[in-house]
Amino acid sequence: MSTAHSSGPLLVISAHAGDFVWRAAGAIALAAERGDRAKVVCLSYGERGESARAWREGKRLDEIKKIRRAEAEAAAGELGAEIEFLDAGDYPLLETPELVDRLVRVYREVEPAVVLTHPLADPYNGDHPAAARMALQARVLAQAIGYDAPGEPLGAPPVFFFEPHQPEQCDFKPNVLLDITPVFERKRRAMECLPAQQHMWDYYTSLAKRRGVQLKRNAGPNLGLPVETMAEAYVRLYPQTTGELA
Amino acid sequence: MSTAHSSGPLLVISAHAGDFVWRAAGAIALAAERGDRAKVVCLSYGERGESARAWREGKRLDEIKKIRRAEAEAAAGELGAEIEFLDAGDYPLLETPELVDRLVRVYREVEPAVVLTHPLADPYNGDHPAAARMALQARVLAQAIGYDAPGEPLGAPPVFFFEPHQPEQCDFKPNVLLDITPVFERKRRAMECLPAQQHMWDYYTSLAKRRGVQLKRNAGPNLGLPVETMAEAYVRLYPQTTGELA
Amino acid sequence: MSTAHSSGPLLVISAHAGDFVWRAAGAIALAAERGDRAKVVCLSYGERGESARAWREGKRLDEIKKIRRAEAEAAAGELGAEIEFLDAGDYPLLETPELVDRLVRVYREVEPAVVLTHPLADPYNGDHPAAARMALQARVLAQAIGYDAPGEPLGAPPVFFFEPHQPEQCDFKPNVLLDITPVFERKRRAMECLPAQQHMWDYYTSLAKRRGVQLKRNAGPNLGLPVETMAEAYVRLYPQTTGELA
Amino acid sequence: MSTAHSSGPLLVISAHAGDFVWRAAGAIALAAERGDRAKVVCLSYGERGESARAWREGKRLDEIKKIRRAEAEAAAGELGAEIEFLDAGDYPLLETPELVDRLVRVYREVEPAVVLTHPLADPYNGDHPAAARMALQARVLAQAIGYDAPGEPLGAPPVFFFEPHQPEQCDFKPNVLLDITPVFERKRRAMECLPAQQHMWDYYTSLAKRRGVQLKRNAGPNLGLPVETMAEAYVRLYPQTTGELA
Amino acid sequence: MSTAHSSGPLLVISAHAGDFVWRAAGAIALAAERGDRAKVVCLSYGERGESARAWREGKRLDEIKKIRRAEAEAAAGELGAEIEFLDAGDYPLLETPELVDRLVRVYREVEPAVVLTHPLADPYNGDHPAAARMALQARVLAQAIGYDAPGEPLGAPPVFFFEPHQPEQCDFKPNVLLDITPVFERKRRAMECLPAQQHMWDYYTSLAKRRGVQLKRNAGPNLGLPVETMAEAYVRLYPQTTGELA
Amino acid sequence: MSTAHSSGPLLVISAHAGDFVWRAAGAIALAAERGDRAKVVCLSYGERGESARAWREGKRLDEIKKIRRAEAEAAAGELGAEIEFLDAGDYPLLETPELVDRLVRVYREVEPAVVLTHPLADPYNGDHPAAARMALQARVLAQAIGYDAPGEPLGAPPVFFFEPHQPEQCDFKPNVLLDITPVFERKRRAMECLPAQQHMWDYYTSLAKRRGVQLKRNAGPNLGLPVETMAEAYVRLYPQTTGELA
Repeated sequence: MSTAHSSGPLLVISAHAGDFVWRAAGAIALAAERGDRAKVVCLSYGERGESARAWREGKRLDEIKKIRRAEAEAAAGELGAEIEFLDAGDYPLLETPELVDRLVRVYREVEPAVVLTHPLADPYNGDHPAAARMALQARVLAQAIGYDAPGEPLGAPPVFFFEPHQPEQCDFKPNVLLDITPVFERKRRAMECLPAQQHMWDYYTSLAKRRGVQLKRNAGPNLGLPVETMAEAYVRLYPQTTGELA
Repeated sequence: MSTAHSSGPLLVISAHAGDFVWRAAGAIALAAERGDRAKVVCLSYGERGESARAWREGKRLDEIKKIRRAEAEAAAGELGAEIEFLDAGDYPLLETPELVDRLVRVYREVEPAVVLTHPLADPYNGDHPAAARMALQARVLAQAIGYDAPGEPLGAPPVFFFEPHQPEQCDFKPNVLLDITPVFERKRRAMECLPAQQHMWDYYTSLAKRRGVQLKRNAGPNLGLPVETMAEAYVRLYPQTTGELA
Repeated sequence: MSTAHSSGPLLVISAHAGDFVWRAAGAIALAAERGDRAKVVCLSYGERGESARAWREGKRLDEIKKIRRAEAEAAAGELGAEIEFLDAGDYPLLETPELVDRLVRVYREVEPAVVLTHPLADPYNGDHPAAARMALQARVLAQAIGYDAPGEPLGAPPVFFFEPHQPEQCDFKPNVLLDITPVFERKRRAMECLPAQQHMWDYYTSLAKRRGVQLKRNAGPNLGLPVETMAEAYVRLYPQTTGELA
Repeated sequence: MSTAHSSGPLLVISAHAGDFVWRAAGAIALAAERGDRAKVVCLSYGERGESARAWREGKRLDEIKKIRRAEAEAAAGELGAEIEFLDAGDYPLLETPELVDRLVRVYREVEPAVVLTHPLADPYNGDHPAAARMALQARVLAQAIGYDAPGEPLGAPPVFFFEPHQPEQCDFKPNVLLDITPVFERKRRAMECLPAQQHMWDYYTSLAKRRGVQLKRNAGPNLGLPVETMAEAYVRLYPQTTGELA
Repeated sequence: MSTAHSSGPLLVISAHAGDFVWRAAGAIALAAERGDRAKVVCLSYGERGESARAWREGKRLDEIKKIRRAEAEAAAGELGAEIEFLDAGDYPLLETPELVDRLVRVYREVEPAVVLTHPLADPYNGDHPAAARMALQARVLAQAIGYDAPGEPLGAPPVFFFEPHQPEQCDFKPNVLLDITPVFERKRRAMECLPAQQHMWDYYTSLAKRRGVQLKRNAGPNLGLPVETMAEAYVRLYPQTTGELA
Repeated sequence: MSTAHSSGPLLVISAHAGDFVWRAAGAIALAAERGDRAKVVCLSYGERGESARAWREGKRLDEIKKIRRAEAEAAAGELGAEIEFLDAGDYPLLETPELVDRLVRVYREVEPAVVLTHPLADPYNGDHPAAARMALQARVLAQAIGYDAPGEPLGAPPVFFFEPHQPEQCDFKPNVLLDITPVFERKRRAMECLPAQQHMWDYYTSLAKRRGVQLKRNAGPNLGLPVETMAEAYVRLYPQTTGELA
């Protein structure tokens, strides 16, 4: 895959510090290996909602944020991605015009060719849809020449939702299966940067295998795919534009 | 586009003799220009349900079939496609195991890389969903090594539904917009092989423009697309499998 | 309401002999009072699936059919409607090309301005969707000049689904609420022609009140509707065509 | 159509200054020709999100608002409608209790018999659903006698969503097709009041033809409609209440 | 039913003071008869949106609140439930972080085993979905050890939506039918604590009968249910977890 | 679990010989351990569509059927279930009135308290929905006293769909998660009776873990569930009827 052509910057907008690792590390590593810029924006550290072990150990809020930040930076490093933290707070992650405006400025600066974020429904975690709504709103605002922010109006980069924890309950019906076999070892190492959630390492390895089985089933038996194909599932939000059906 | 790589045979399964022209001629011509085999299978001539003018003129059933066949052959010729007629009757097009079996044999012989057919819902025309159900069932049967028909088991070619006449009423939400600008003149000439429906020529030209506007809107303003981009809309049935999000 | 203008024939296609009374008697009586022809076609007598009491009483099949027929005729008489029985059998009501063809001939003869039938989903009774599928298929076939049956090609009469017994489980989301207050007494008398199901009389009276409350809620408080408005709920299948939004 | 009976005031609530022209001018002109009051409320001028050409020409914000206002006033004049601008800002149009309250007061003053607004989903433009949500919330509030605003409690006027730019992507499944043939020339002239978007004139003329074809298809061949029927598509939100199925 | 085992506290979150009576009184009385704590939280008194008669009689806002409070307290008393009023205002009921935080504290204090609230869609009343969104968000927040509020992190109590006034329009497809026959008299007495809405007493009695008929239909004829079974309908939001299919 | 009360016979209707093992073995073993009768009906052996390895090895049709039958009998034996083969043929499994009638007779003989079958959608395998449609139709027919088959009319046993291979593509949104931890070893041994699909053993073990994680997430952290809870996912078709919300 290292010879694949560059296709432009990848922007990943996630609610908490760890989301991008479990759900989109493969796509990020593929972009980095192609030589594309990959940038992750974490709206919060997940300091309240996704740090149960640290709270049980009696850590303070500022300590938890610091730990989560370091872990996420290490994971991003393994994947070859930049990472930025907006520290907007979690549980709840509040939607505000100011936060949306910060995202507009990110879009204008990164000029992404592809955007990844959470799906719009998640009855188990309100921060995820809130992040997705802001990511989508900011993308539309960044397209308007009349929106007052530095940089050029954005094009229309495709948006892909990455996989939530309970996909069926989130109305997540994958329409893209991404082959991450060539970079799965990098994804595994990135997951191992998050030691507090060690049980997730195997869980997401198993999920990648299962999505890989589906990829092979949908691609047909004749494609010379490896016995153990690893995959990530995505939902494409806008219609694909193409010069060829395939 | 003439330098595009070959991607394998295209199979189009349509209920009546004219459907492939209005709805999928662009995709067919693109395949032919790439050097791929393109094969159209018409389950019927549309002799009862889509030949109102001929009936009003007092023509007989056998005459109508002959006319429709000649027109469809001419249109296929313009597009560079083979065409086969199964003459299964229309209005209604009846689903039978025998007709499905014939389609299995077509799949095994053509070994398509891509399949096009009608969407599964159409409250205005029961033949269209009937054709789609048979096309899908035959594709699955052709994949089984245990199915008793000549040839090798089929792979898992992607299936795309082409656009029905009243898309919203048919739950047709396009997720692929195909740029047919390079071959639109061929599509126009193929449409002109169907003189009894002259009012459709402009109708489908106008539709191609409208879908083209949407293609540009979804592709972003920066892509160097021509002022008048022409497009066809499709719905992809199975998840896309890919090595890159784009 | 007796001064309302005539709007053309009404055709009601129901799976069993009693369905039209509980679910559509109001619409039928309104049509009759307007002076329109109203015709009910019962595909079966409901002799196996909807005659539990008669079977428990030890009646024979031919007796049951005769009873159900007489009851349905009496009810149709109260409503001012013609009634025809196709005696196609129930539980299951089998879909056949021959039965669809008979319905095509009914359409061509009646030339309905409005069609009523069952909704397309009913997990409690497979005969109801089977009747609906045949009613819809026959309507489309009757529109084709090339379909070989007496009479002129049918226009495009609107189709309304009448209310099933468990509406939410049948995906029945009413988009038309019909005011049947002026004819409710006729509906009640028609229901009373079906003595074996006496508990239904009050049940459907209660339903008419509830749908009437909803009608008033959706019509606004200013319309001078009576305190106790009675209504039937319907789902319109095809888009309404109109010269005025109201 | 000039002899049609008056049916009460029409209220159109749109996010930006031009929306009502492209999407609902036919319904507005029909109301005006019937002698009904027609009032358009524009929540913003569309100064940031829908004035790309003016921004590229280097115009200032206040200039752009002024231009857009003048154009919209001219278009409303052509249609025979009043117009009011709330100047709430666009891109993003922010939902606030104050803005909703202003709309409640409009409802109480106009006492509309029919309401038109945007559909609730639009992945291409967040202002449109925001306008729709406020329009619907205000309608419900205006119905409550306990809501503290001048005027009488509102009835329950039906709400129709007008057509978005990419209907399928907005889950816009038309259930009403409005015949605007008698007033299409007025719609065309109103469109021509918006010179910055000249390419839209033909685009929406073509759309009106296409919706007109669908209207004829759904109305049946027997209605004496003109060869070129022009139509607008709508989605009715609440159930229709009626004394007659038609 | 008085011998049924205790299953833990029941928490009911409703937008207005009367909602819990019409829609969930049966479930509340069953819990109380089992010996479980039942707590009702009313976000508002429904003073503006659901007190039309009092406003027409010229009562003042503070009087209306007082009346509604007294009525709701009496109804809760009949059912054996505690009741708390947050007095957050209605029409509109505004979603705020502060109100959500108050609900988090209620969850942490009550530690409910079961939660009841409004469904998420209601085109007739925006306060109902607003209450539901806050109830669901607070439940998730209360589960996080990192959320700063007294008490232990909440478990994952199941959530049931109770029935809205026009169920089909609110996408309310019941998946649980609760037998309230043993406590229906208590529900009736609780309803009679709300004298301003006397017409509702019979309306909801009739609804309970209708849902009871459906319960019997779905439970099978062999269960020894009484002739007149009374029921309430619910929608379960999260998957049921069980050790036995039944 | 061995002390759980008996709840009546379990009937499993599956298209092919192996389906019940991968997808429902846990539910079957739980029923058997409770002392309930568990009966599996296989409509076909899966001899053409699900025996790829045997065909590649050159086996004949009758040999393959014999092998599949022996394997399925062994698996049923491990689970404590009866098994019956209708040998109706697969790929395609054809729906016929005769086959439905045979299922009616099974229902009347078994008098199931619970029914398991395939979901109604599966774009990868047409036999699965065909089996489901027949299982559901036969259940309704068996309820009618007028249906001419031995035995008493059936009650209304609940129906659960078991999990398909690609759940999201089959619109399979689980609403019941069944704890199969106590019998997972039996499920594993039953899977090991199918040696030709050895890769499935780990696949379905992994799936059981994943569904178990979801079960714990939905049941709350306080329930004393084991670290590694194993689960199967189901969709309940009809509303649950109950005397208690839980």
